[in-house]
Amino acid sequence: MDVAIPLYDRFTALDAVGPYEVLSRLPGTTVHFIAAEPGPFRTETGMLSLNADLPLREMPEPDVVVVPGGLGNRALLEDEVLLAWLRHAHEHTDWTTSVCTGSLLLAAAGILDGLEATTHWLAMDKLGELGAKPVDRRVVEQGKVITGAGVSAGIDMALTLVDRIAGPEVSQAIQLGIEYDPEPPYDSGSVAKATPEIVAFLRENVAILG
Amino acid sequence: MDVAIPLYDRFTALDAVGPYEVLSRLPGTTVHFIAAEPGPFRTETGMLSLNADLPLREMPEPDVVVVPGGLGNRALLEDEVLLAWLRHAHEHTDWTTSVCTGSLLLAAAGILDGLEATTHWLAMDKLGELGAKPVDRRVVEQGKVITGAGVSAGIDMALTLVDRIAGPEVSQAIQLGIEYDPEPPYDSGSVAKATPEIVAFLRENVAILG
Repeated sequence: MDVAIPLYDRFTALDAVGPYEVLSRLPGTTVHFIAAEPGPFRTETGMLSLNADLPLREMPEPDVVVVPGGLGNRALLEDEVLLAWLRHAHEHTDWTTSVCTGSLLLAAAGILDGLEATTHWLAMDKLGELGAKPVDRRVVEQGKVITGAGVSAGIDMALTLVDRIAGPEVSQAIQLGIEYDPEPPYDSGSVAKATPEIVAFLRENVAILG
Repeated sequence: MDVAIPLYDRFTALDAVGPYEVLSRLPGTTVHFIAAEPGPFRTETGMLSLNADLPLREMPEPDVVVVPGGLGNRALLEDEVLLAWLRHAHEHTDWTTSVCTGSLLLAAAGILDGLEATTHWLAMDKLGELGAKPVDRRVVEQGKVITGAGVSAGIDMALTLVDRIAGPEVSQAIQLGIEYDPEPPYDSGSVAKATPEIVAFLRENVAILG
Protein backbone atom coordinates (compact mmCIF):
# COMPACT_ATOMS: atom_id res chain seq x y z
CA MET A 1 0.00 0.00 0.00
CA ASP A 2 1.34 3.41 -0.99
CA VAL A 3 0.69 6.39 1.27
CA ALA A 4 1.42 9.85 -0.17
CA ILE A 5 2.03 12.87 2.05
CA PRO A 6 2.30 16.09 0.00
CA LEU A 7 4.62 18.76 1.39
CA TYR A 8 4.64 22.48 0.67
CA ASP A 9 6.39 25.55 2.01
CA ARG A 10 5.45 26.49 5.57
CA PHE A 11 3.72 23.24 6.50
CA THR A 12 3.46 22.00 10.10
CA ALA A 13 5.95 19.20 10.74
CA LEU A 14 3.99 17.20 13.31
CA ASP A 15 0.92 17.15 11.02
CA ALA A 16 2.98 15.11 8.56
CA VAL A 17 5.25 13.18 10.91
CA GLY A 18 2.56 11.94 13.31
CA PRO A 19 0.72 9.98 10.59
CA TYR A 20 4.04 8.97 9.00
CA GLU A 21 5.21 7.44 12.27
CA VAL A 22 2.00 5.38 12.54
CA LEU A 23 1.46 4.42 8.90
CA SER A 24 5.10 3.54 8.16
CA ARG A 25 4.75 0.74 10.73
CA LEU A 26 1.78 -0.83 8.97
CA PRO A 27 3.12 -4.01 7.33
CA GLY A 28 3.24 -3.81 3.55
CA THR A 29 3.00 -0.03 3.53
CA THR A 30 5.37 2.57 2.09
CA VAL A 31 4.97 6.23 2.98
CA HIS A 32 6.10 8.65 0.26
CA PHE A 33 6.80 12.32 0.81
CA ILE A 34 5.94 14.12 -2.41
CA ALA A 35 5.57 17.69 -3.67
CA ALA A 36 5.07 19.70 -6.83
CA GLU A 37 8.85 19.40 -7.23
CA PRO A 38 11.14 17.26 -5.03
CA GLY A 39 13.43 18.96 -2.56
CA PRO A 40 13.48 20.40 0.94
CA PHE A 41 10.40 22.13 2.37
CA ARG A 42 10.64 24.33 5.44
CA THR A 43 8.09 24.37 8.18
CA GLU A 44 6.23 27.54 9.06
CA THR A 45 8.74 28.33 11.82
CA GLY A 46 11.63 28.12 9.36
CA MET A 47 13.53 25.97 11.85
CA LEU A 48 13.22 22.57 10.16
CA SER A 49 13.10 21.14 6.65
CA LEU A 50 11.84 17.79 5.42
CA ASN A 51 12.56 16.41 1.99
CA ALA A 52 10.02 15.48 -0.66
CA ASP A 53 11.49 12.58 -2.63
CA LEU A 54 9.06 12.44 -5.56
CA PRO A 55 7.13 14.91 -7.70
CA LEU A 56 3.35 14.73 -7.54
CA ARG A 57 3.24 13.65 -11.20
CA GLU A 58 5.14 10.45 -10.44
CA MET A 59 2.54 9.32 -7.93
CA PRO A 60 -0.85 10.19 -9.39
CA GLU A 61 -2.82 7.38 -7.74
CA PRO A 62 -1.62 6.47 -4.24
CA ASP A 63 -3.79 4.21 -2.10
CA VAL A 64 -3.88 6.71 0.77
CA VAL A 65 -3.42 10.49 0.78
CA VAL A 66 -2.57 12.37 4.00
CA VAL A 67 -2.60 16.17 3.61
CA PRO A 68 -0.82 18.01 6.43
CA GLY A 69 -1.74 21.51 7.56
CA GLY A 70 0.31 24.63 7.99
CA LEU A 71 0.04 28.37 7.57
CA GLY A 72 1.62 28.06 4.12
CA ASN A 73 -1.38 26.31 2.63
CA ARG A 74 -3.50 29.48 2.48
CA ALA A 75 -1.39 30.40 -0.57
CA LEU A 76 -2.32 27.06 -2.19
CA LEU A 77 -6.09 27.27 -1.96
CA GLU A 78 -6.20 28.25 -5.64
CA ASP A 79 -3.10 26.32 -6.73
CA GLU A 80 -4.34 24.22 -9.63
CA VAL A 81 -1.31 21.91 -9.71
CA LEU A 82 -1.93 20.65 -6.18
CA LEU A 83 -5.74 20.82 -6.32
CA ALA A 84 -5.91 18.92 -9.61
CA TRP A 85 -3.55 16.29 -8.18
CA LEU A 86 -5.78 15.95 -5.10
CA ARG A 87 -8.94 15.63 -7.20
CA HIS A 88 -7.47 12.95 -9.45
CA ALA A 89 -5.86 11.06 -6.58
CA HIS A 90 -9.11 11.12 -4.59
CA GLU A 91 -10.95 9.40 -7.46
CA HIS A 92 -8.64 6.40 -7.01
CA THR A 93 -7.75 6.33 -3.31
CA ASP A 94 -8.90 3.85 -0.74
CA TRP A 95 -8.63 6.65 1.84
CA THR A 96 -8.27 10.41 1.55
CA THR A 97 -7.25 12.07 4.79
CA SER A 98 -6.00 15.31 6.32
CA VAL A 99 -4.57 16.70 9.53
CA CYS A 100 -5.20 20.19 10.92
CA THR A 101 -5.64 22.77 8.15
CA GLY A 102 -4.81 20.15 5.54
CA SER A 103 -8.59 19.84 5.30
CA LEU A 104 -8.70 23.36 3.82
CA LEU A 105 -6.85 21.99 0.79
CA LEU A 106 -9.21 19.03 0.50
CA ALA A 107 -12.13 21.46 0.72
CA ALA A 108 -10.61 23.80 -1.86
CA ALA A 109 -10.34 20.83 -4.19
CA GLY A 110 -14.07 20.18 -3.73
CA ILE A 111 -13.51 16.88 -1.94
CA LEU A 112 -15.33 17.95 1.22
CA ASP A 113 -18.40 19.52 -0.43
CA GLY A 114 -21.31 18.80 1.88
CA LEU A 115 -19.27 16.44 4.07
CA GLU A 116 -18.65 16.74 7.79
CA ALA A 117 -14.99 17.50 8.45
CA THR A 118 -12.66 18.95 11.05
CA THR A 119 -9.54 21.11 11.19
CA HIS A 120 -7.56 23.17 13.70
CA TRP A 121 -10.04 24.83 16.05
CA LEU A 122 -8.94 28.27 14.84
CA ALA A 123 -9.72 27.40 11.19
CA MET A 124 -13.28 26.07 11.57
CA ASP A 125 -14.91 29.11 9.95
CA LYS A 126 -12.58 28.95 6.98
CA LEU A 127 -13.37 25.27 6.51
CA GLY A 128 -17.07 26.09 6.36
CA GLU A 129 -16.51 28.86 3.84
CA LEU A 130 -14.83 26.30 1.59
CA GLY A 131 -17.90 24.07 1.48
CA ALA A 132 -17.44 21.49 4.26
CA LYS A 133 -19.62 21.11 7.36
CA PRO A 134 -17.18 21.78 10.22
CA VAL A 135 -17.69 19.59 13.27
CA ASP A 136 -15.90 19.71 16.58
CA ARG A 137 -14.56 16.18 16.82
CA ARG A 138 -10.95 15.01 16.92
CA VAL A 139 -11.33 12.51 14.07
CA VAL A 140 -14.19 12.76 11.57
CA GLU A 141 -15.01 9.87 9.22
CA GLN A 142 -17.18 10.27 6.13
CA GLY A 143 -16.89 7.17 4.00
CA LYS A 144 -13.32 7.02 2.75
CA VAL A 145 -12.59 10.59 3.85
CA ILE A 146 -11.07 11.04 7.32
CA THR A 147 -10.10 14.44 8.69
CA GLY A 148 -8.21 15.09 11.92
CA ALA A 149 -8.22 18.14 14.19
CA GLY A 150 -5.16 20.29 14.93
CA VAL A 151 -1.53 19.16 14.63
CA SER A 152 -1.19 16.30 17.15
CA ALA A 153 -4.57 14.84 16.10
CA GLY A 154 -2.82 13.28 13.12
CA ILE A 155 -1.60 10.52 15.42
CA ASP A 156 -5.15 9.66 16.48
CA MET A 157 -6.39 9.98 12.90
CA ALA A 158 -3.72 7.58 11.66
CA LEU A 159 -4.33 5.02 14.42
CA THR A 160 -8.02 5.15 13.49
CA LEU A 161 -7.13 4.66 9.83
CA VAL A 162 -4.94 1.66 10.67
CA ASP A 163 -7.86 0.19 12.60
CA ARG A 164 -10.12 0.54 9.55
CA ILE A 165 -7.48 -0.90 7.19
CA ALA A 166 -5.97 -3.68 9.29
CA GLY A 167 -8.10 -4.13 12.40
CA PRO A 168 -7.81 -3.46 16.12
CA GLU A 169 -4.84 -5.70 16.89
CA VAL A 170 -2.59 -3.93 14.41
CA SER A 171 -3.73 -0.48 15.55
CA GLN A 172 -3.07 -1.48 19.15
CA ALA A 173 0.33 -2.93 18.30
CA ILE A 174 1.42 0.25 16.55
CA GLN A 175 0.08 2.33 19.45
CA LEU A 176 2.26 0.30 21.81
CA GLY A 177 5.19 0.49 19.38
CA ILE A 178 5.12 4.30 19.52
CA GLU A 179 4.18 4.12 23.21
CA TYR A 180 1.23 6.45 22.67
CA ASP A 181 -0.01 6.59 26.25
CA PRO A 182 -0.36 10.37 26.54
CA GLU A 183 0.36 12.08 29.83
CA PRO A 184 0.64 15.83 29.26
CA PRO A 185 1.35 17.89 32.37
CA TYR A 186 -1.97 19.75 31.96
CA ASP A 187 -5.38 19.03 30.46
CA SER A 188 -5.52 22.03 28.16
CA GLY A 189 -5.62 20.49 24.71
CA SER A 190 -9.04 21.69 23.54
CA VAL A 191 -11.04 24.89 23.65
CA ALA A 192 -13.48 23.24 26.05
CA LYS A 193 -10.69 22.37 28.50
CA ALA A 194 -8.35 25.37 28.32
CA THR A 195 -8.96 28.53 30.32
CA PRO A 196 -10.75 31.39 28.54
CA GLU A 197 -7.60 33.50 28.95
CA ILE A 198 -5.47 30.97 27.08
CA VAL A 199 -8.04 30.57 24.32
CA ALA A 200 -8.17 34.36 23.93
CA PHE A 201 -4.37 34.58 23.94
CA LEU A 202 -4.11 32.10 21.07
CA ARG A 203 -6.83 33.82 19.07
CA GLU A 204 -4.74 37.01 19.31
CA ASN A 205 -1.40 35.30 18.63
CA VAL A 206 -2.05 33.06 15.69
CA ALA A 207 1.66 32.70 15.01
CA ILE A 208 1.94 30.31 17.93
CA LEU A 209 -0.69 27.95 16.55
CA GLY A 210 0.62 26.77 13.25
CA MET B 1 17.13 30.23 23.96
CA ASP B 2 18.80 27.76 21.61
CA VAL B 3 17.54 24.18 21.48
CA ALA B 4 19.73 21.64 19.67
CA ILE B 5 18.35 18.38 18.30
CA PRO B 6 21.12 16.12 16.98
CA LEU B 7 20.19 13.87 14.06
CA TYR B 8 21.87 10.69 12.88
CA ASP B 9 21.17 7.94 10.37
CA ARG B 10 18.16 5.75 11.18
CA PHE B 11 16.65 7.99 13.87
CA THR B 12 12.91 8.01 14.69
CA ALA B 13 11.20 11.04 13.18
CA LEU B 14 8.49 11.59 15.79
CA ASP B 15 11.09 11.49 18.59
CA ALA B 16 12.60 14.65 17.11
CA VAL B 17 9.53 16.34 15.64
CA GLY B 18 7.29 16.02 18.71
CA PRO B 19 9.61 18.14 20.89
CA TYR B 20 10.40 20.44 17.95
CA GLU B 21 6.70 21.17 17.47
CA VAL B 22 6.34 22.12 21.15
CA LEU B 23 9.62 23.94 21.76
CA SER B 24 9.58 25.93 18.50
CA ARG B 25 6.43 27.65 19.81
CA LEU B 26 8.10 28.81 23.01
CA PRO B 27 8.64 32.56 22.60
CA GLY B 28 12.29 33.54 22.21
CA THR B 29 13.34 30.02 21.30
CA THR B 30 15.07 28.71 18.20
CA VAL B 31 15.26 24.98 17.54
CA HIS B 32 18.34 23.88 15.59
CA PHE B 33 18.70 20.52 13.86
CA ILE B 34 22.37 19.60 13.95
CA ALA B 35 24.60 16.62 13.16
CA ALA B 36 28.22 15.57 12.88
CA GLU B 37 27.99 16.99 9.34
CA PRO B 38 24.99 18.90 7.92
CA GLY B 39 22.77 17.21 5.37
CA PRO B 40 19.81 14.87 5.09
CA PHE B 41 19.34 12.04 7.59
CA ARG B 42 16.97 9.18 6.88
CA THR B 43 14.70 7.65 9.46
CA GLU B 44 14.99 3.98 10.35
CA THR B 45 12.22 3.09 7.87
CA GLY B 46 14.12 4.80 5.05
CA MET B 47 10.90 6.55 4.01
CA LEU B 48 11.65 10.08 5.23
CA SER B 49 14.62 12.40 5.56
CA LEU B 50 15.07 15.50 7.69
CA ASN B 51 17.88 17.97 7.22
CA ALA B 52 20.51 18.95 9.76
CA ASP B 53 21.39 22.58 9.12
CA LEU B 54 24.49 22.93 11.30
CA PRO B 55 27.47 20.79 12.28
CA LEU B 56 27.80 19.89 15.95
CA ARG B 57 31.01 21.93 16.16
CA GLU B 58 29.15 25.14 15.35
CA MET B 59 26.82 24.75 18.32
CA PRO B 60 28.95 23.46 21.20
CA GLU B 61 26.88 25.02 23.99
CA PRO B 62 23.13 25.12 23.33
CA ASP B 63 20.79 25.97 26.20
CA VAL B 64 18.75 22.81 25.70
CA VAL B 65 19.68 19.48 24.14
CA VAL B 66 17.01 17.02 22.95
CA VAL B 67 18.39 13.65 21.84
CA PRO B 68 15.96 11.60 19.74
CA GLY B 69 15.93 7.82 19.65
CA GLY B 70 16.08 5.38 16.79
CA LEU B 71 17.51 2.00 15.89
CA GLY B 72 20.51 3.74 14.30
CA ASN B 73 21.88 4.96 17.59
CA ARG B 74 23.17 1.55 18.66
CA ALA B 75 26.03 2.17 16.22
CA LEU B 76 26.82 5.46 17.98
CA LEU B 77 27.17 4.21 21.54
CA GLU B 78 30.95 4.37 21.14
CA ASP B 79 31.04 7.29 18.70
CA GLU B 80 33.41 9.73 20.34
CA VAL B 81 32.44 12.70 18.14
CA LEU B 82 28.84 12.63 19.30
CA LEU B 83 29.55 11.49 22.86
CA ALA B 84 32.21 14.17 23.41
CA TRP B 85 29.80 16.79 22.03
CA LEU B 86 27.09 15.59 24.42
CA ARG B 87 29.45 15.66 27.42
CA HIS B 88 30.68 19.17 26.70
CA ALA B 89 27.20 20.49 25.88
CA HIS B 90 25.78 18.97 29.06
CA GLU B 91 28.30 20.90 31.17
CA HIS B 92 26.74 24.12 29.88
CA THR B 93 23.06 23.34 29.26
CA ASP B 94 20.11 24.53 31.26
CA TRP B 95 18.38 21.28 30.30
CA THR B 96 19.61 18.02 28.83
CA THR B 97 16.82 15.79 27.55
CA SER B 98 16.05 12.72 25.49
CA VAL B 99 13.18 10.87 23.89
CA CYS B 100 12.87 7.09 23.53
CA THR B 101 16.26 5.44 23.01
CA GLY B 102 17.94 8.85 22.86
CA SER B 103 18.62 8.18 26.54
CA LEU B 104 20.99 5.36 25.52
CA LEU B 105 23.25 8.01 23.99
CA LEU B 106 23.06 10.18 27.11
CA ALA B 107 23.90 7.11 29.18
CA ALA B 108 26.78 6.12 26.88
CA ALA B 109 28.18 9.64 27.39
CA GLY B 110 28.08 9.08 31.15
CA ILE B 111 25.41 11.71 31.69
CA LEU B 112 22.94 9.31 33.30
CA ASP B 113 25.36 7.53 35.66
CA GLY B 114 23.37 6.72 38.78
CA LEU B 115 20.35 8.78 37.67
CA GLU B 116 16.81 7.58 37.20
CA ALA B 117 15.88 7.67 33.52
CA THR B 118 13.46 6.18 31.02
CA THR B 119 13.45 5.00 27.41
CA HIS B 120 11.33 2.90 25.05
CA TRP B 121 9.89 0.00 27.03
CA LEU B 122 11.82 -2.48 24.91
CA ALA B 123 15.18 -0.81 25.71
CA MET B 124 14.95 -0.66 29.51
CA ASP B 125 17.53 -3.40 30.08
CA LYS B 126 20.02 -1.75 27.74
CA LEU B 127 19.58 1.57 29.56
CA GLY B 128 20.45 -0.14 32.83
CA GLU B 129 23.52 -1.78 31.32
CA LEU B 130 24.75 1.69 30.36
CA GLY B 131 24.69 2.94 33.95
CA ALA B 132 21.27 4.58 34.44
CA LYS B 133 18.52 3.44 36.79
CA PRO B 134 15.64 2.62 34.44
CA VAL B 135 12.21 3.60 35.74
CA ASP B 136 8.84 2.97 34.19
CA ARG B 137 7.47 6.50 33.98
CA ARG B 138 6.56 8.52 30.89
CA VAL B 139 8.67 11.54 31.84
CA VAL B 140 11.53 11.30 34.34
CA GLU B 141 13.09 14.42 35.85
CA GLN B 142 16.46 14.39 37.61
CA GLY B 143 17.62 17.94 38.15
CA LYS B 144 18.26 19.40 34.72
CA VAL B 145 18.07 16.01 33.02
CA ILE B 146 14.68 14.97 31.64
CA THR B 147 14.14 11.71 29.77
CA GLY B 148 10.97 10.65 27.98
CA ALA B 149 9.63 7.19 27.20
CA GLY B 150 9.05 5.82 23.69
CA VAL B 151 8.53 7.92 20.55
CA SER B 152 5.32 9.88 21.22
CA ALA B 153 6.40 10.63 24.81
CA GLY B 154 8.58 13.41 23.44
CA ILE B 155 5.48 15.59 23.22
CA ASP B 156 4.73 15.11 26.92
CA MET B 157 8.41 15.56 27.81
CA ALA B 158 8.58 18.84 25.91
CA LEU B 159 5.35 20.20 27.41
CA THR B 160 6.79 19.36 30.83
CA LEU B 161 10.02 21.13 29.92
CA VAL B 162 8.10 24.22 28.78
CA ASP B 163 6.29 24.21 32.11
CA ARG B 164 9.59 24.19 33.97
CA ILE B 165 11.09 26.92 31.76
CA ALA B 166 8.14 29.25 31.27
CA GLY B 167 5.35 28.16 33.60
CA PRO B 168 1.94 26.53 33.35
CA GLU B 169 0.17 29.14 31.22
CA VAL B 170 2.72 28.87 28.42
CA SER B 171 2.71 25.06 28.55
CA GLN B 172 -1.08 25.07 28.41
CA ALA B 173 -1.14 27.58 25.55
CA ILE B 174 1.22 25.47 23.47
CA GLN B 175 -0.79 22.35 24.30
CA LEU B 176 -3.90 24.08 22.95
CA GLY B 177 -1.95 25.42 19.96
CA ILE B 178 -1.04 21.88 18.89
CA GLU B 179 -4.47 20.67 20.06
CA TYR B 180 -2.92 17.90 22.16
CA ASP B 181 -6.12 16.38 23.50
CA PRO B 182 -5.35 12.76 22.73
CA GLU B 183 -8.11 10.39 21.72
CA PRO B 184 -6.60 7.21 20.30
CA PRO B 185 -9.12 4.58 19.20
CA TYR B 186 -7.77 2.11 21.78
CA ASP B 187 -6.03 2.29 25.14
CA SER B 188 -3.02 0.20 24.27
CA GLY B 189 -0.12 2.60 24.63
CA SER B 190 1.79 0.93 27.46
CA VAL B 191 2.81 -2.58 28.43
CA ALA B 192 0.42 -2.43 31.37
CA LYS B 193 -2.54 -1.60 29.12
CA ALA B 194 -1.88 -3.67 25.99
CA THR B 195 -2.86 -7.32 25.73
CA PRO B 196 -0.14 -9.90 26.50
CA GLU B 197 -0.41 -11.11 22.89
CA ILE B 198 0.40 -7.67 21.50
CA VAL B 199 3.29 -7.18 23.92
CA ALA B 200 4.69 -10.55 22.90
CA PHE B 201 4.20 -9.75 19.20
CA LEU B 202 6.23 -6.56 19.52
CA ARG B 203 8.98 -8.27 21.49
CA GLU B 204 9.31 -10.69 18.58
CA ASN B 205 9.03 -8.05 15.85
CA VAL B 206 11.31 -5.28 16.98
CA ALA B 207 11.34 -3.75 13.51
CA ILE B 208 7.86 -2.37 14.11
CA LEU B 209 8.91 -0.52 17.24
CA GLY B 210 11.56 1.93 16.18
